[in-house]
Amino acid sequence: MQSRLPTTVYLSADDVIRIVQRVGLSRCIAGVAARIERDFLRWPEFDKSARVACHSRDGVIELMPIADAHEFAFKYVNGHPSNTRAGLPTVMAFGVLADVDTGAPRLLSELTLTTAIRTAAMSALAARTLARPECRVMALIGNGAQSEFQAIAFRDLVGIRTLRVYDVDPAATAKLVANLVDQRLDIVVCNSAADAAQGADIVTTVTADKTNATILRADMIAPGMHINAVGGDCPGKTELHADVLTRGNVFVEYEPQTRIEGDIQQMAADFPVTELWQVLAGTAPGRSGDAEVTVFDSVGFALEDYSALTFIRDTAAELGIGDVVELIPHSDDPKNLFGVLDRHTTNTGPAVFA
Amino acid sequence: MQSRLPTTVYLSADDVIRIVQRVGLSRCIAGVAARIERDFLRWPEFDKSARVACHSRDGVIELMPIADAHEFAFKYVNGHPSNTRAGLPTVMAFGVLADVDTGAPRLLSELTLTTAIRTAAMSALAARTLARPECRVMALIGNGAQSEFQAIAFRDLVGIRTLRVYDVDPAATAKLVANLVDQRLDIVVCNSAADAAQGADIVTTVTADKTNATILRADMIAPGMHINAVGGDCPGKTELHADVLTRGNVFVEYEPQTRIEGDIQQMAADFPVTELWQVLAGTAPGRSGDAEVTVFDSVGFALEDYSALTFIRDTAAELGIGDVVELIPHSDDPKNLFGVLDRHTTNTGPAVFA
Repeated sequence: MQSRLPTTVYLSADDVIRIVQRVGLSRCIAGVAARIERDFLRWPEFDKSARVACHSRDGVIELMPIADAHEFAFKYVNGHPSNTRAGLPTVMAFGVLADVDTGAPRLLSELTLTTAIRTAAMSALAARTLARPECRVMALIGNGAQSEFQAIAFRDLVGIRTLRVYDVDPAATAKLVANLVDQRLDIVVCNSAADAAQGADIVTTVTADKTNATILRADMIAPGMHINAVGGDCPGKTELHADVLTRGNVFVEYEPQTRIEGDIQQMAADFPVTELWQVLAGTAPGRSGDAEVTVFDSVGFALEDYSALTFIRDTAAELGIGDVVELIPHSDDPKNLFGVLDRHTTNTGPAVFA
Repeated sequence: MQSRLPTTVYLSADDVIRIVQRVGLSRCIAGVAARIERDFLRWPEFDKSARVACHSRDGVIELMPIADAHEFAFKYVNGHPSNTRAGLPTVMAFGVLADVDTGAPRLLSELTLTTAIRTAAMSALAARTLARPECRVMALIGNGAQSEFQAIAFRDLVGIRTLRVYDVDPAATAKLVANLVDQRLDIVVCNSAADAAQGADIVTTVTADKTNATILRADMIAPGMHINAVGGDCPGKTELHADVLTRGNVFVEYEPQTRIEGDIQQMAADFPVTELWQVLAGTAPGRSGDAEVTVFDSVGFALEDYSALTFIRDTAAELGIGDVVELIPHSDDPKNLFGVLDRHTTNTGPAVFA
């Protein structure tokens, strides 16, 4: 009997870099944003749960599962802000797609680069839904690993033309400026977060410190602003003063997870929020007028990774990129796992030729 | 600046088969059992949680995380009893070890074969702790993918010499008999579970159906028996009649998970159980006498996979087996993820030689 075990495709970091180079970063961000929007519109079809977090002194490791009737997805992701001092990334990730019907894993992929793309796509999709039309100026506070992706996404999907950038680490800002030199964006380097927010239509905060920080205070907020708060995504890790949250209307991805992890962890359990998918679906109001302040309290939800994984999987298949790996032992008789120990394995000498 | 990203080692199914062939199955089971015992004795050092399960019509997909101060581990595992009808294994698994300090993944390994080894090691360790000394006869009910591993483990670690085997599928039993023909075990093929239990010192149930089955009834239980209940490991999936559980003293791995998944899901929330690690540590009593019935209501706990992963990792390193994979993109500046898109990737023509 032939083994009918479906194959598992592996996409390394190098493979996904190649995919993004071939397709182009703008088209990847737009493609992932389109998938996220499509999947958010079928929100009730997903089996959702808050991610499982393992906290330690310097960071957190999280597992983020989700499934619809056909595909199960999960992401492994860490957050260790002190990593950069040791030459390591703050965020590293990989993920899996599996068949719900059989449990067979079908895709194992890097998700570090992909997470930056999906986070930027999610932010821009939320801003396109919630911000005033005609936003042209964005403050970008926090100029680390995810910042350029936010810049490109907001340029392409929201129409941002000017960035007002600030980071406590001037080297991070210099890196952002160098990376975006040919990207048709006017960049203004600012001296503080307050300076950056001055005159901005949208304020994006994407900082890494695992503290209850106050990156934005109420006095920095102008009427009509949209705030895209990306970095407050863990218990004890916030970016907004509570007064900023009461100043505007707050939108979230998945309320049970955001209550634990988002900037609204500072607020009472009944502090009113709206899940973004309801605005996309037309079942809840978004912005009510040009003077309203809207806040997207983003923490990153498993459904966005599902969307990104399916985009990367389909794009890799179109381009013929990726390797088949034997993560699961193949056996002619599925009840005879013991029998695989009789198998001639590779690299053991003559048996390899048997 | 040189990237200091630690490497990730990948062990395929073929690699782990090779490890078990080189070391020998008996020594692997004994090695994993020793690791489990060592890790159970430092139980309070682990950050534990019940696994996260995603249930569907035909099965379940689970993520099982755990960590101590140094290493984070998780396993992906499914359970789809109807898979075998389609030529697929019921259980497929893989897992990861990561550094708690940085979140960097260090090992990605197959765990299908390894799960069979660790489950057998766990069962035999529990029986060595709880069963009467001088047990020689074991009923083995359920002769599927895990059964031979149970047989070898109980032969080596408990002293079992005779197996009384039964499965609703005679082909599964025939396969077990063929696999164990040279394994110094007397095998008696039985006509029913009741027949198999007759005269047994230990009864192991390792069946797959996702139903509230009654594999063992109270009238099959003799004084002094130890029951190793492996297959009841999911809500709605049990093997023992409630009277079997009240007949004996029940021992579990991690109580919060077993209350949801184990055979004790049938019992009241305050039904008394003892966590096995306490018996190993000498802080709770085990068997009180030769007439007592002991029940190990096993569901499989993440700590056992941590133990197995560290054993496989260390053994692979000793043997020089495994490949380094680039699951995380390496970058000279960890804040410059965007910069990896300028990288010369492989297989894109001349750039590969740059």
